[in-house]
Amino acid sequence: MSKIKPSLSKGTRDFLPQEVAKRNYIFDIIKSVFRKYGFEQIETPAIERLETLTGKYGEEGDKLLFKILNSGDYFSEIRNSKFEIRNLTSQEATTLISEKGLRYDLTVPLARYVVQHQDKLAFPFKRFHIGPVWRADRPQKGRYQEFYQCDADVIGSNSLLNEVELLQIYIEVFRLLRFDPQEPGQKLVVTINNRKILQGVIEYLDAQNLSSQFFTIIDKADKIGYDGVMSELSNVGFTQDQLTKLQHIFSQRQNVDRALDYFDVIFKDIELGRKGVDEIRYVLSHLNQVDRTNHVIYDILLARGLDYYTGLIVEVKILDAKVGSVGGGGRYDNLTEMFGGQNLSGVGISFGIERIYDVMEELNLFPETIAQGVKVLFVARNAEVEEFTFKQVQTLRDDDIPAEIFLGNVKKQKHFTYAEQKGIPFMVEIGENEMASGNFRLRNVKERKEEAAGLSIQDLKTKFI
Amino acid sequence: MSKIKPSLSKGTRDFLPQEVAKRNYIFDIIKSVFRKYGFEQIETPAIERLETLTGKYGEEGDKLLFKILNSGDYFSEIRNSKFEIRNLTSQEATTLISEKGLRYDLTVPLARYVVQHQDKLAFPFKRFHIGPVWRADRPQKGRYQEFYQCDADVIGSNSLLNEVELLQIYIEVFRLLRFDPQEPGQKLVVTINNRKILQGVIEYLDAQNLSSQFFTIIDKADKIGYDGVMSELSNVGFTQDQLTKLQHIFSQRQNVDRALDYFDVIFKDIELGRKGVDEIRYVLSHLNQVDRTNHVIYDILLARGLDYYTGLIVEVKILDAKVGSVGGGGRYDNLTEMFGGQNLSGVGISFGIERIYDVMEELNLFPETIAQGVKVLFVARNAEVEEFTFKQVQTLRDDDIPAEIFLGNVKKQKHFTYAEQKGIPFMVEIGENEMASGNFRLRNVKERKEEAAGLSIQDLKTKFI
Repeated sequence: MSKIKPSLSKGTRDFLPQEVAKRNYIFDIIKSVFRKYGFEQIETPAIERLETLTGKYGEEGDKLLFKILNSGDYFSEIRNSKFEIRNLTSQEATTLISEKGLRYDLTVPLARYVVQHQDKLAFPFKRFHIGPVWRADRPQKGRYQEFYQCDADVIGSNSLLNEVELLQIYIEVFRLLRFDPQEPGQKLVVTINNRKILQGVIEYLDAQNLSSQFFTIIDKADKIGYDGVMSELSNVGFTQDQLTKLQHIFSQRQNVDRALDYFDVIFKDIELGRKGVDEIRYVLSHLNQVDRTNHVIYDILLARGLDYYTGLIVEVKILDAKVGSVGGGGRYDNLTEMFGGQNLSGVGISFGIERIYDVMEELNLFPETIAQGVKVLFVARNAEVEEFTFKQVQTLRDDDIPAEIFLGNVKKQKHFTYAEQKGIPFMVEIGENEMASGNFRLRNVKERKEEAAGLSIQDLKTKFI
Repeated sequence: MSKIKPSLSKGTRDFLPQEVAKRNYIFDIIKSVFRKYGFEQIETPAIERLETLTGKYGEEGDKLLFKILNSGDYFSEIRNSKFEIRNLTSQEATTLISEKGLRYDLTVPLARYVVQHQDKLAFPFKRFHIGPVWRADRPQKGRYQEFYQCDADVIGSNSLLNEVELLQIYIEVFRLLRFDPQEPGQKLVVTINNRKILQGVIEYLDAQNLSSQFFTIIDKADKIGYDGVMSELSNVGFTQDQLTKLQHIFSQRQNVDRALDYFDVIFKDIELGRKGVDEIRYVLSHLNQVDRTNHVIYDILLARGLDYYTGLIVEVKILDAKVGSVGGGGRYDNLTEMFGGQNLSGVGISFGIERIYDVMEELNLFPETIAQGVKVLFVARNAEVEEFTFKQVQTLRDDDIPAEIFLGNVKKQKHFTYAEQKGIPFMVEIGENEMASGNFRLRNVKERKEEAAGLSIQDLKTKFI
């Protein structure tokens, strides 16, 4: 074996124990809230057939799929094909030598899963899924080729209560993650809108031919500002009359009641738009009943890029945080149609857990001690007391107290560093005296001072149980 | 989008909610024991550089690596290479068009990780890692291309206490998984041996030239039996004198003390062998001190195939179960050397969690209700009571009681099936009467009968909190 410098594949990461503990802290809170609302966890494989993945993410997405080489003598497929090799494009070659890829998100696998297992699932199907996905994106700060997604969806129910509950989940998770609504920099902002309203606006403007441009442009409002939106809309062909009407609509932005009342007027003959307004009212009134409105903002300029949304859309941000959105979702139809399933309505949200991690680091929101488990480190000062020390540790473990024994280089005081690095709060050093007397001194690791002395093993048990 | 029949890539699996719950049940128990003994969780990426993976698993292993196609116009590398395409082998092609692969196990990534991050780790480094690995094996019953591994290792400590603790972990995990030592079919058997003893035997027989055949053959003892072992040893060139000596050694198998005493005699001038015997004695005496010997068996015929073991080796089986071993491990040296790291001794174990799952299903060892979370399902009988029902559910959730609301097809009694499929134990149906009175009937879902009546929401809260 030749020696090689160890390194990661670009855009991938290792996680140190402390990082895993922090990530698990986030995952565990999100999972507990999902479960509280009746969502069950599923898993799908990392590897999917390219047939399943291709064509679902647009042309750009297809390029970003990681494709896996067929096993065995795959190259003979190319040699034996009818293609002229010298002219073979990479895309053509791929069809010959690759049948599998890594999943690009958790949504297409969900669609496949629901159709494939529908006879075994309880509908409405409320599932959550947390796991890695892979994209051959150019890596940059905060963007990886392998990263986690975290989705909750309800499939097969048209009830708007699902929308309400999913918004409640957002609010509850961020509260449990200790984002303080009183601290401006930590304030959670859940922005909602409804695609039916946006479609209604398009109808009202008689701008059906410009609808996709309309969505794309207002989706950028955050970046280009209100004036930018207006000028880009003008550039793509919105008339002065249409822009004036839009100005009137957008001017209602600051007050949700005024905005919805205004829509009542302009949607008098536009049923889809009215339906959208009713849906927003339903969601807000239900959230109001459970005191969950103070984080929720209605914004006519929220569009969300993805084509497939058909009803409520939502985006979650931490006010003032620079990372962009930390969550988003909405209602969609026909998710399962691509796999020949019946038309099932769905609604879902996702948590941007990589970003949430970064924001929590930035705002210092992780608890100081994330339980790593071990409560006390027993240090055997020399080989003669090892066996005795082992027995003491075992006494604690017998009562399910996580405890550890350190046999490393005690002369160089490495046990202090060891305990600190692992976040072990207490330490008991054992030498001949302790072995003879059975009396122990307990040291506080962080403060490097004595916590208590003259303790029996029974005393320690009582303390840590 | 064309409609395609949904299907999995061969050798991969979806997991239904009930299956995920059961798998998590196993993982959670194993994790809790790892943590109790001071092991910390790490994660490494699924994707590794082929440079990291290749050459570590033998020629066969290299063939089983899943290789990922380079992004972009990768095929131009082939067109522009100096190779004559018509003669290009798949292996040569791979070097041109693939730089990354999926990890094949968690051990090589651990070696890379330790060398790469050694300045940030606390040594002795006690880590565990649970995650999927990928092998392009031919799929068959119980063998998948994507499956989970679960490893715990201690890196950088020569102390035999690590061996003792790892064996304790095995015993504790299977006890918590409810394998009953009194039930013969569930009995845990932890077989140990020491590579130093086997090396000592080789030296005693003066058969250094046949050592690798020796390991391979006795490793098959389970399959080919004692006579098979002797005849294969004879076939590869062991002399009659050597075989007679081996017969004497093997005849001590049934009694560990007799076997070790016999080794004392024949290893009088063989230091390595004597060291192995001392190590076995140390481990057994320490296990004895904490009452953990009754599952542990010493067997001179245990060899374990992998070349890299140098000390204690261990294999775990469930007596009478047909799945083969459910765990194994041992001490090794030089793990990190392949990445230019300093020579660190390591010792580790792994749990065969896919097999453990199968055995537990077979023996019916999963608890009847694995907590899915939701304690009570509220059924709104019609649209008029939806809002009221929603408020009742919220009252419970405000006290962190997992509760769910069902709005599906109530006329067809689908709420019963729904609750049963999701393992929700209780149900409250709400109609006009319940809304008017605020009095609820609680139904036991499984037995489909009334559990209690005339309950207020406060009563329900008290019951489920």
